[in-house]
Amino acid sequence: MADPWQECMDYAVALARQAGEVVREALKNEMNVMIKSSPADLVTATDQKVEKMLISFIKEKYPSHSFIGEESVAAGEKCVLTDNPTWIIDPIDGTTNFVHRFPFVAVSIGFVVNKKMEFGVVYSCVEDKMYTARKGRGAFCNGQKLQVSQQEDITKSLLVTELGSLRTPETVRIILSNMEKLLCIPIHGIRGVGTAAVNMCLVASGAADAYYEMGIHCWDMAGAGIIVTEAGGVLMDATGGPFDLMSRRIIAAGSKTLAERIAKEIQIVPFQRDDDN
Amino acid sequence: MADPWQECMDYAVALARQAGEVVREALKNEMNVMIKSSPADLVTATDQKVEKMLISFIKEKYPSHSFIGEESVAAGEKCVLTDNPTWIIDPIDGTTNFVHRFPFVAVSIGFVVNKKMEFGVVYSCVEDKMYTARKGRGAFCNGQKLQVSQQEDITKSLLVTELGSLRTPETVRIILSNMEKLLCIPIHGIRGVGTAAVNMCLVASGAADAYYEMGIHCWDMAGAGIIVTEAGGVLMDATGGPFDLMSRRIIAAGSKTLAERIAKEIQIVPFQRDDDN
Repeated sequence: MADPWQECMDYAVALARQAGEVVREALKNEMNVMIKSSPADLVTATDQKVEKMLISFIKEKYPSHSFIGEESVAAGEKCVLTDNPTWIIDPIDGTTNFVHRFPFVAVSIGFVVNKKMEFGVVYSCVEDKMYTARKGRGAFCNGQKLQVSQQEDITKSLLVTELGSLRTPETVRIILSNMEKLLCIPIHGIRGVGTAAVNMCLVASGAADAYYEMGIHCWDMAGAGIIVTEAGGVLMDATGGPFDLMSRRIIAAGSKTLAERIAKEIQIVPFQRDDDN
Repeated sequence: MADPWQECMDYAVALARQAGEVVREALKNEMNVMIKSSPADLVTATDQKVEKMLISFIKEKYPSHSFIGEESVAAGEKCVLTDNPTWIIDPIDGTTNFVHRFPFVAVSIGFVVNKKMEFGVVYSCVEDKMYTARKGRGAFCNGQKLQVSQQEDITKSLLVTELGSLRTPETVRIILSNMEKLLCIPIHGIRGVGTAAVNMCLVASGAADAYYEMGIHCWDMAGAGIIVTEAGGVLMDATGGPFDLMSRRIIAAGSKTLAERIAKEIQIVPFQRDDDN
């Protein structure tokens, strides 16, 4: 039997590349930056334009499919995951990077059917790196097969995470105290390039051993999540429970042992679920 | 009058490229990782091999010049800056990245005469980005002129820094408490790609508004320092005083106002000077 979703995936790759060109072009021009949930949560007209472009192209071809997009949700659309084939879109993952022209900015497209990830596409458009994964077929970057590090020893690990855009003192305190606990184990180090999707792709590539974050959204994880698992990695909720795309928490790691160890170390920052409307 | 150091600079660029090829080649092979000052301060045979190669090639051509190299100092050589023309070399800036194949690894060569930076070369060899600057002639990346952001408003700034390799509880506490103070101003965010030299080149490019760090060494700053100033940026000691290559502290910023504001916010972590033998 032919792969029922391969055509969708090919389309997603082509669209991500096209969207990436729009983003790259926008980086050359002046930007008008707007604020969303906090002074560090930014959005630009390009985020909105690219999401509209992606959704309208996909809707035209697949009118029965569902959509969850970062900017559509910000504009008031519901964020509920049903069993219907659903495209989960982040037009610009790393908007703060985009605003500063910090060179890690990704177009992320995840495709979920019966609440299971079927394929993911992350196009890191300044680096010109196209990350893709189809369930059961492996993960690739520009055609090259990806493989996680399989590191199990946290003392030999390099982690990626972000400080987030929420700046309430209590949240910042927990985020930094989690880093402190991990650093003092000790681990080799912590990096962060400013986009969840690219951080996860670095785990898929084996360049980082694990990524964890709380407060991100389903559109930050849906594209890269399956890229990590198809590269041999593990997704877990930051609580140590099973991964839940709508929980706003993730550990993506090169081994289950490492993911479990990180879950044991970190304190949970409470966030409202994505589907808690 | 002809530029007395242009020939040295051309040679440095050629050597950095050649060294970068050795580093890229080494990334394909197994590595034997050794520990230096702490379990997070790593070194490999490639660091030592590349430094030996660079110094022997330069010594051959400029036998009267002086040298400060990360691995030579680790092996017991003195680390003193005289008025003699001095090549300050970091064969692999970002050794932890190198060990993990995290894709930011730089060969850094700074050239200092009468204790003043004359030129700097930073080759980010996985990205294939050659950053260069000659005093009074501007800073470039792969031939393209660099310009800092000139951002003066800290609330609109994106900073880069690192968590360092020292893992004593007091040091980690100060480093994280500095991040906490800055985040809660609030600022747009903090990134770190794992190498001082590349972080500073991101400031020179305008992608980040400022970089600060304590505990790094003269070989981490000597190549990229002049790249920042020639791109229009400012170097300052983390205390707010004048920049001192041997002090192990730096703020490199897109504007003096921003550098001064960061200096006001951060608490100093005490480190022994590089030239305090």
